[in-house]
Parts: sequence; C-alpha cells; structure tokens
Amino acid sequence: MDLRAIGVFDSGLGGLTAVRQLRRLMPSENIIYFGDTARVPYGNRSRETLLQYARQDMRFLHTFDLKAVVIACGTVSTNCLEALQAESDVPVTGVVQPAVERAAAATRSGRIGLVATRASVASGAYERAFHRADPALEVHALACPLFVPLVEEGRCRPGDIVIETVAEEYLASLRKAGVDTLVLGCTHYPLLSEVIGGVMGPAVSLVDVGAEAARACRDQLAARDALAERETGSVRFYTSDRAVNFQRLASLFLGEEAGGTVEQVDISQY
Amino acid sequence: MDLRAIGVFDSGLGGLTAVRQLRRLMPSENIIYFGDTARVPYGNRSRETLLQYARQDMRFLHTFDLKAVVIACGTVSTNCLEALQAESDVPVTGVVQPAVERAAAATRSGRIGLVATRASVASGAYERAFHRADPALEVHALACPLFVPLVEEGRCRPGDIVIETVAEEYLASLRKAGVDTLVLGCTHYPLLSEVIGGVMGPAVSLVDVGAEAARACRDQLAARDALAERETGSVRFYTSDRAVNFQRLASLFLGEEAGGTVEQVDISQY
Repeated sequence: MDLRAIGVFDSGLGGLTAVRQLRRLMPSENIIYFGDTARVPYGNRSRETLLQYARQDMRFLHTFDLKAVVIACGTVSTNCLEALQAESDVPVTGVVQPAVERAAAATRSGRIGLVATRASVASGAYERAFHRADPALEVHALACPLFVPLVEEGRCRPGDIVIETVAEEYLASLRKAGVDTLVLGCTHYPLLSEVIGGVMGPAVSLVDVGAEAARACRDQLAARDALAERETGSVRFYTSDRAVNFQRLASLFLGEEAGGTVEQVDISQY
Repeated sequence: MDLRAIGVFDSGLGGLTAVRQLRRLMPSENIIYFGDTARVPYGNRSRETLLQYARQDMRFLHTFDLKAVVIACGTVSTNCLEALQAESDVPVTGVVQPAVERAAAATRSGRIGLVATRASVASGAYERAFHRADPALEVHALACPLFVPLVEEGRCRPGDIVIETVAEEYLASLRKAGVDTLVLGCTHYPLLSEVIGGVMGPAVSLVDVGAEAARACRDQLAARDALAERETGSVRFYTSDRAVNFQRLASLFLGEEAGGTVEQVDISQY
C-alpha cells in the first residue's frame, strides 16, 4: 500500500476529464492536479516550447510527495514523454500508449483514426506507437484545432450548428478512409463524444485517451502493490492563472462540482 | 526627424493588422514587432498574469533604441496601459483612447457597441474612456471569445456558416440595442469586418482599433517632429515561439508577404 498522491497535469483544465476517470477507478487515491491556465492552450506550440513548459509543470508537481504522474495532456504526451520519464523518479504515464493498445485491440478493419491538436499530430507519436503495436495498422491522423476553443466555450452539444459543422468538415476524411476505431487524442474531446459519434456513426468505436491513461495508471499501481487503501481520496487543484473561470470549466470537465481548494502557482518560478 | 524605430507588440500575430496600418500611414518608419506566440492568446487571462506578460514584452522591446511603442493588443491596452506608460521612457500608445475618440465623433445616436476579448470587456476600460469623452454616451460591451480562434483558423469569410452563426449570436444584443457605431476592440477583428458588417448592416460604422492607434502614433510623432525621413522603412519580426505558423498567419494579418527576418526570443528571460 502506498498513500502518496498521484500527480496529474495538463495545459489547462481539460485534463480534469482524466481526473474524473481516475476518481471513478480509484476513489481512494489522493490527486494533485496542476493546470497551466496562464499558458493554455499547448496544442499549436513548438516542441521546444512544449518541453520547457512541461518540465516546469513536472517540477511543480514534484514539490509534492508522489507515487506516480499522469500526463493528462495529449500534446505533452506526444511531444515530451520520454524526456519527462527520464527526468522523473516516479513512473510517468502519458496518454498515447494506453490508447494505442486499446485501439489496436478494438479495430477489426485495421484502419484507425486519430483526432488531436496540431502539435500532437505533427509529432507522429501515435503513428510510431501503432506501428510498434502492429505494423499492418493503417493510421489516419487529423489535427482539429478548433475543437478545444469550441469545447471551452461550451459549444459541444449535438444540435449546435457550429460544432456540428466543424466536426463534419474535420471528420469527412476519416469517414472516407473507413476507420472503425477513432482515438480522441486530447482530454478536451470526451465532451465531444456525442457529436463525434454522431458524425462517425455507431459502427466506429471511440477511444478516450484520458480514460485509458487512468486505467493504465491503476494497473501499474496495482502491479506495484501501491494502491491506496483509505475511505475516500481528495483532489487538490493548482492553476498558474488566477482561477477566474475555474468553477465553470472545472465542473464542465470533471462532471461534478470541483470540491477542495484551488490555489494559484507562479509556474515561471519552476 | 528621428530615425529610431517604433516598437509594436501583441499577444500573437493579430497585431500585424496594426503594423499594416502603421506601414500604410508611415512607410518610412522602421518597425520592431514582437508577438508573444508562446503564450498567445491573452484574452481570457487574469489582469495579474497580463501585467506580468506585458512587462516582459515591453522589456524585450526596450532592448532596441525606440522612439515610440504601440500596444497592438486590445487586452493589454485595456488592462495594463497606465502601468506600462509609467514604466516606459518613450511614449506608449494603446488602442483604447484613439478608438474611443473616433467612435465618439462618429456616433449620431450616442449608442456605441464594443466587441473584444473577455479580459478587455471585464476591465471596463472602454466604458471609462467613453464616459470621460462624453458621459451621455451609452456603451454596450460584449465579449466574443471565439472570434480569435476562428480568425486564426482562417474562418473569417462571409458565407462560412460557422463564423456567420457565431457572429450572429454574439452580435444579436448589439443589434437589439441599436448601436450605430461598433468598436472592433481586438486586432484580430479587422479580418471579420465583412462578416460583422454584414450582420450589423450598412448603417453601423465599424472602428478598427489598430488603424486608430496607428493614426494616433503618427500624429504624436508628427507633433514631436519625430517622423523618419528615408526612402522605405523595414520591419523586423520577433516571436516567443518557434515561427511554425508564422508565414501563414503573418500574411493573413499583414495583407502582404512578411518580408524581413523572423527571430525567436525566450521571453521568460525578460
């Protein structure tokens, strides 16, 4: 048993969809969440800038006594995972590998789609991971840069002509390619499950990268006999900007009121 | 005559619409442009974070020998102008006052609309400036947070159902209020002139804050006898992230190919 906390970070608050899954699977765990709201979004930035930001995010999380870190940011996971793992003394789980394993097991046609930020797609990380899993898989990766701002403005519901139009345009090439499995490669995207599912049709399986990362983290802790055993775990929230829109966005992503404290951190000091 | 350069900064590349106007009015001037592309957008951030970022942007510009600074960022102009003016030894022009003067002169009904980022609207800076100009003016301020990401993805043309729908929803309250003058309070928004003009109708005058700031800067340099006299001025571009999308976005905002050099700056060092 290990009562230390799990550290989770994301560019902003989208990673709270992964926290939601962590809490569902492991309600006894304490979680420290850091959202870099002063520099969100990460999805269009260069690899060099992403690595600088991600290292600071990790250094902040490591001021706590942690037993594991979950990178709940698709863009960081695709661009910086190896560097962050090499620099951390606790296991670091990104979102790519768990989602790739799930998608590779789910596909029947061998044609898999990926939607993600521009930087995630540019990294080629998913293609490489799929190729390692099975060189015969055909992967169609697609950048969807408007999904994040639309979700953050609450435009994620079926029937909204704005998100419906954007989703139909983005996803047309994946429909044409005939993918039967689609990886939602950004922790904002689970909020678009209904819209994306509506466009892709019921025959296409959607893979939520945050949920798969949570499962991988749980399996890894269980294998190390490091799961916490206590009544209920807590979540502590940290953000790099003042928590102006925190409650609105946090409840959107977390699916519940964000109880517990929210504190501001000057991330440039880390 | 003063051959020193004019410094211009913005959160990203939207401020190049102001550079376009500066070059149109003063083709002989040298311009140093800094775009904080590693931390763009500024529009949803807190005042404290904005001030920290804007001070770093100013410190970088002041490594050059300047005769004036133009803040081509609506969000910084509304939240930080006084602090930055107090800390600078050259005149600093923001976008608020010149636009307010133009709009106050243009309105016949006394009902003026303002569209801007969330942080600009929250600052109340436009209302205060309009009230100083004429306490009888009725000002309707409206945050339009999706305009910037939609423009950056090139969705700014009439006939695009996404931007048309978003613009119609945002602007409905201003149409209802019967404004006859509308301040486009963000340097991204001139690219939406046609869409916004289409929604508001031909009787509503649009005020481009970047163009008004350029005019104010020119007038101020002329009054100080500090205009440059040379054949053609040059523009030097600096960005805080690697210039991945620079050419695409720069030509969009500048309305011409961005000639000259682009260099990357580590803004966290300033």
